[in-house]
Amino acid sequence: MSSAEKRDQFLAVWPALADELVQYMEGEKMPKEAVDWFRRSLDYNTPGGKLNRGISVVDTVQILKGSELSADEYKRAAILGWCIELLQAYFLVADDMMDQSITRRGQPCWYRVENVGNIAINDAFMLEAAIYYLLKKHFRQKKYYVDLLEIFHEVTFQTELGQLIDLITAPEDVVDLSKFSLDKHHLIVVYKTAYYSFYLPVALALHMAGVSSPSAYQKALDILIPMGEYFQVQDDYLDCYGTPEQIGKIGTDILDNKCSWLVNKALQKASPEQRKVLDDNYGVKSSESEARVKAVYKELELAREFEQYEADSYKRINALIEEIPAEGSQDGLKREVFQSFLAKVYKRQK
Amino acid sequence: MSSAEKRDQFLAVWPALADELVQYMEGEKMPKEAVDWFRRSLDYNTPGGKLNRGISVVDTVQILKGSELSADEYKRAAILGWCIELLQAYFLVADDMMDQSITRRGQPCWYRVENVGNIAINDAFMLEAAIYYLLKKHFRQKKYYVDLLEIFHEVTFQTELGQLIDLITAPEDVVDLSKFSLDKHHLIVVYKTAYYSFYLPVALALHMAGVSSPSAYQKALDILIPMGEYFQVQDDYLDCYGTPEQIGKIGTDILDNKCSWLVNKALQKASPEQRKVLDDNYGVKSSESEARVKAVYKELELAREFEQYEADSYKRINALIEEIPAEGSQDGLKREVFQSFLAKVYKRQK
Repeated sequence: MSSAEKRDQFLAVWPALADELVQYMEGEKMPKEAVDWFRRSLDYNTPGGKLNRGISVVDTVQILKGSELSADEYKRAAILGWCIELLQAYFLVADDMMDQSITRRGQPCWYRVENVGNIAINDAFMLEAAIYYLLKKHFRQKKYYVDLLEIFHEVTFQTELGQLIDLITAPEDVVDLSKFSLDKHHLIVVYKTAYYSFYLPVALALHMAGVSSPSAYQKALDILIPMGEYFQVQDDYLDCYGTPEQIGKIGTDILDNKCSWLVNKALQKASPEQRKVLDDNYGVKSSESEARVKAVYKELELAREFEQYEADSYKRINALIEEIPAEGSQDGLKREVFQSFLAKVYKRQK
Repeated sequence: MSSAEKRDQFLAVWPALADELVQYMEGEKMPKEAVDWFRRSLDYNTPGGKLNRGISVVDTVQILKGSELSADEYKRAAILGWCIELLQAYFLVADDMMDQSITRRGQPCWYRVENVGNIAINDAFMLEAAIYYLLKKHFRQKKYYVDLLEIFHEVTFQTELGQLIDLITAPEDVVDLSKFSLDKHHLIVVYKTAYYSFYLPVALALHMAGVSSPSAYQKALDILIPMGEYFQVQDDYLDCYGTPEQIGKIGTDILDNKCSWLVNKALQKASPEQRKVLDDNYGVKSSESEARVKAVYKELELAREFEQYEADSYKRINALIEEIPAEGSQDGLKREVFQSFLAKVYKRQK
């Protein structure tokens, strides 16, 4: 199946889930305008992204099973996938308010939609609440139900920790590069992105596939967290070096004082003169300042540094994957789960 | 034990819980400034209120047990109580942002504290995440653990529904009294306040006391939801008729276009002329307008309407309570649980 077909199949599950959530509200005798509001928030904020996280759950369940999923299995895996997409929607609605962003996925950020404003905070809360409503409705009878609840709680908390470090390390208004470091960058990307984007889809699929050995989850974590970090470093690289055609937007990390891998690598290698250029120009909202920062990046050969980082990461992650026996490990893992993930992210151009 | 002693005993449990949450963050190797930030948010936002909801859990467990709690039982009941206080902190931090409030509990709202701003959205998220961290740490081994998780999920969602209706019914900037009604008021107060403030403490205590019969929870709901509604109507009444000495603040419901019981009662009884005065003056930020609205309230004898409502509610709730046999019902309920609650709220002056 092509990836477009996979996406369409996954998207086809969404309307029924939105209906269930809306029906819950109707059952509670909520006024029509509140029901309409919630449906609009669900549909505006949940689908519309790349859906990689959600689809990964389905892909992983499929690989672990090793044969075609029944319609019922597909549906259930897709529901878990949509729960990750709801989690992401919850984070993004809030992140956009905290970052004062303008657009998201080619449309205005939800809080900027007419009449929404700060009500978006409560809408974010409701997107999160929808996760637990759907999990209860569809997984209450499964013996791994409580595991699903716990993993959502834990990964949610971790992502919020990552967001907190990011927010206090790189406020948009006060630039202070002495707060930055590659260690801090590592922490931010692991907590803010890797847990929910890389570990969570696989962990949910493992639960659904009946894998219960803690060692399996630990190994998945050991592989997927570095993979998520690699993914985010790529993201940082593409923000600066990707063309708008490739990445579908114009990168603004330098202008926005982002704690990007590039600036941290630059800080590590910079001479005192170069450091001064960075201090004076990073996070300054002018294209001249941005160009000066980019000139330092060029002097420091950051593109080459990234290639080196990419090659090293690829080797290291592959070595970890190959520790899983080719025939699958006793605790239920399969190499292919991770190879398939890595194939999706390695040397991506967008 | 006096209520001040009860409160001190309950407060004495908090520092250890804050420490556990902070230690979790330290264990995840978070930077010191992030750990300090979280501790400050926990301590700023969680204690400091009246703590009625939290202490009610302890009181109810005590009544259900019928004899002194062991130190271990006290601790566990208090932790559940603190989880409600964390839930309340999560809501209040966000509500204050959505309402653009200035102070809370005699200090600036968290989002107005220096350097906090919109980071408060993520801080609210983390206050919620703390609930599930504490529940897992202290209740993972209990057979009612999953019930605790579910009731927190459900009540959280219900409260968010109430907040949504409130926000779209009574926006501060656009006054439209045709959106108001006593039915809408009923829905808002039940969902936004009664579930988490009245039902949740008792439901948690019932779980801890080993009560599992669905009928017990249903009866508790049937008594506590009207009690919560009565409480909120009192609150609306005191906002207008309570003295600042009584309620510890100056009421602003009329100025703030709140969907209060009083305005809804007034709308129900108003002549076309009185309705016009309300339309022209409700939610207008001037003391003249406020005085005109109050004059209509006086003409309509709303104070007497409230006394009637209060007497009717008291009678109705008491009748429900008396359906529980004096010796306790087979499903594990005791009259005293509800009598004790009602005694706390009936004819309160603050």
